Amino acid sequence: MTNGSRIAVDAMGGDEGLAVMLAGVARARRQFEGRGLDLRFILVGDEAAITEGLKSHPNLTAHSEIVHAPGVVGSSDKPSQAIRRAKTTSMGVAIDMVKQGRAAAAVSSGNTGALMAMAKLSLRTMPGIDRPALAAMLPSLGENDVVVLDLGANTECTARNLVQFAVMGAAYARTTLELQSPRVALLNIGSEDQKGTDEIRDAAQTLRLATHLPMTFTGFIEGDRLSRGEVDVIVCDGFSGNIALKTAEGTARFVADLLRRAFKSSMRSKIGFLISKPATDLLRHHLDPNNHNGAVFLGLNGLVLKSHGGANEIGVATAIGVAAKMVRDDLTRRIAEDLGNFEAKAA
Amino acid sequence: MTNGSRIAVDAMGGDEGLAVMLAGVARARRQFEGRGLDLRFILVGDEAAITEGLKSHPNLTAHSEIVHAPGVVGSSDKPSQAIRRAKTTSMGVAIDMVKQGRAAAAVSSGNTGALMAMAKLSLRTMPGIDRPALAAMLPSLGENDVVVLDLGANTECTARNLVQFAVMGAAYARTTLELQSPRVALLNIGSEDQKGTDEIRDAAQTLRLATHLPMTFTGFIEGDRLSRGEVDVIVCDGFSGNIALKTAEGTARFVADLLRRAFKSSMRSKIGFLISKPATDLLRHHLDPNNHNGAVFLGLNGLVLKSHGGANEIGVATAIGVAAKMVRDDLTRRIAEDLGNFEAKAA
Repeated sequence: MTNGSRIAVDAMGGDEGLAVMLAGVARARRQFEGRGLDLRFILVGDEAAITEGLKSHPNLTAHSEIVHAPGVVGSSDKPSQAIRRAKTTSMGVAIDMVKQGRAAAAVSSGNTGALMAMAKLSLRTMPGIDRPALAAMLPSLGENDVVVLDLGANTECTARNLVQFAVMGAAYARTTLELQSPRVALLNIGSEDQKGTDEIRDAAQTLRLATHLPMTFTGFIEGDRLSRGEVDVIVCDGFSGNIALKTAEGTARFVADLLRRAFKSSMRSKIGFLISKPATDLLRHHLDPNNHNGAVFLGLNGLVLKSHGGANEIGVATAIGVAAKMVRDDLTRRIAEDLGNFEAKAA
Repeated sequence: MTNGSRIAVDAMGGDEGLAVMLAGVARARRQFEGRGLDLRFILVGDEAAITEGLKSHPNLTAHSEIVHAPGVVGSSDKPSQAIRRAKTTSMGVAIDMVKQGRAAAAVSSGNTGALMAMAKLSLRTMPGIDRPALAAMLPSLGENDVVVLDLGANTECTARNLVQFAVMGAAYARTTLELQSPRVALLNIGSEDQKGTDEIRDAAQTLRLATHLPMTFTGFIEGDRLSRGEVDVIVCDGFSGNIALKTAEGTARFVADLLRRAFKSSMRSKIGFLISKPATDLLRHHLDPNNHNGAVFLGLNGLVLKSHGGANEIGVATAIGVAAKMVRDDLTRRIAEDLGNFEAKAA
């Protein structure tokens, strides 16, 4: 991360409130300091409340400035309503810090739809991009995590949207996972050419021909293979992506609940559980959504990250860490370059 | 199950071949015999191969007749092609047994798209139903399994399709789960009214007003709550349903793989694993897709069930068992009654 660059944090967003946001930011700062990196923050929201909250985090205070915003976007506010009062809300002002160049990225745990609408209106999409997409890294059995997009920013998508998502997702994987030619697949309900919607088939057709791009298009992937580590980028519309992401989260929790019940079912299994606890703790850590928090809107002229509304202190710190790495890697510029090459060769 | 009624089995469908199909049928027969029920079968496919295969299952032979069909539907055959040679294939002839009234249900592990197309063409949809839907029971943390439909028969759906699926899914839950007024929800990417596609919002609007139906519409449900046991029926288009079902399967396997790795990571955890093995075996049994096999096409004038292509002997037996229970419960008539009431009151 370039010294002196700052991350703007919507201190008021999220279901867990200001205290958890500040604790998460403070934790991220400590972690990066331990690795010799100096993170600095612009904390946006109710100035009095933030000042009060910072009393528990003196080290964070020294590395932060506060920017006052009186309003908060509610979790059930419609994006169209939220946009109208953008300039008075902590979310809108945090994004504005990026637009003004005062911050290198903005992070919010607030309402996803409002965040997307405000970010798009304020920062605008990159040349060649019709709509931004929400992307995140999911754990896999492979050597690296897998980039999945769109995760809910666009309920319905055209073939052209999906192709743009593929190019941006590949650029993200090239930058963050340091892969030369990421393997990219389209999420579908079968692996055969004729499966799925017209949009998906048309997108596949375009991607198959785009051999000049720094990616390897591998065709369709089904829901049961998302975590196998067979591809590096999975592209889908926001509806399917949101269903897949949440179903994966819910199923992991379901299996963990069943496991807990199984371990409690007899004295013998309780003893086995105690003995193998270090192993199951490792598993719990690996599956905890807080350790995979931080989704980014790709395709905007600036970095805006969405942290899970229910994230705890660790989750918020994870999202801040993702933002810091993207600033360090200059992700926005790298994506713009890849898009430029795509457009130039396609023309 | 009414004595004398038969289940037609597509003996040639499925990735695992004839031997697994016959072993699965034989296993189901033994299990039901143990409970005092006499299952009888029509085995459809290559007569010589079935006769040879039955030599390993003398008890099944005594409860089966063979109907010859020379052709097989391949797993990558297009439905439109498969339909043209329906009458010569094991899949098409098995369905025809239901149409002729010789069998009370047909079960196939073959190509889902072809099975759907053939079943619809041969048996036709019930009055008031535009399209059949593929429904299955998924495990949950609640007192009963949860009915999910559509799981892939219809890639895109109108609001009207979704409403019909809700009525059929509720009838299925009333019959099979013996619930008076099943809780029905629409799968969506948020729980607020304005979330999702027009189709989903319109379907919700209709279902909210349909208070005369023997179901309780609870609104939207997100992917992370599918297995919580909060609802009895989850309704979605076939694309989302397929993504959710397969993502859940894949995630359960992913967690199990991580658990295996964790248990192998040290001597201590290996010992803990051995001690708690009965508990984890129970979990594995609970999550094994073979123990939840057997999806049914709802909305046809006859019972056609889809067994997973990769099902093993236990999986095939599970699907046969699901078919036998539907025959016993007279599911088709019960759904027709509920649809009749829906139409009558809506008119």
